[in-house]
Amino acid sequence: MVSLLSNDDRQDALTKLDGWSYNDSDKTISKEFEFKDFIDAWGFMSKVAIKAEKLDHHPDWSNGYNKVSVNLTTHDASGITENDIKLAKFMDKVA
Amino acid sequence: MVSLLSNDDRQDALTKLDGWSYNDSDKTISKEFEFKDFIDAWGFMSKVAIKAEKLDHHPDWSNGYNKVSVNLTTHDASGITENDIKLAKFMDKVA
Repeated sequence: MVSLLSNDDRQDALTKLDGWSYNDSDKTISKEFEFKDFIDAWGFMSKVAIKAEKLDHHPDWSNGYNKVSVNLTTHDASGITENDIKLAKFMDKVA
Repeated sequence: MVSLLSNDDRQDALTKLDGWSYNDSDKTISKEFEFKDFIDAWGFMSKVAIKAEKLDHHPDWSNGYNKVSVNLTTHDASGITENDIKLAKFMDKVA
């Protein structure tokens, strides 16, 4: 099982991501992505879906037309782990 | 522009759908779908995504692993139209 990041490691990791914020109440990191239209939003989600299945680490996310709202956490660890950071980095890269 | 269904027509349409409910506060119809796993949930969403783009009528939806929560409404009409019923029927069919 992947272990929880320390507060310092989590904050350090967040500074290397693009626009993600940590929510202490539900122990998630979140970001809102905005695209040109639904096709672009769906293209982004499709890339992330395949990556998520490969990592066996899945986002909680919602979509309305050109917007995608993402929450990441590691339920088994009750907080943020390297898996969340890895998936967040991938999302930043393909967005 | 597609026109708002009357209350009677909306209620009649709902009885022909499988498990959708109307929420008067935000004028949406909604349903929670549950699948075996993420691959099945994503397969469903992918079919719906292409249909939605083809109809030019897109859902507000969220996904976490094997669950997909859907809200449909027609923003231009501020309520439920034939387009929502059509997309809901398609979702029931492919789920």
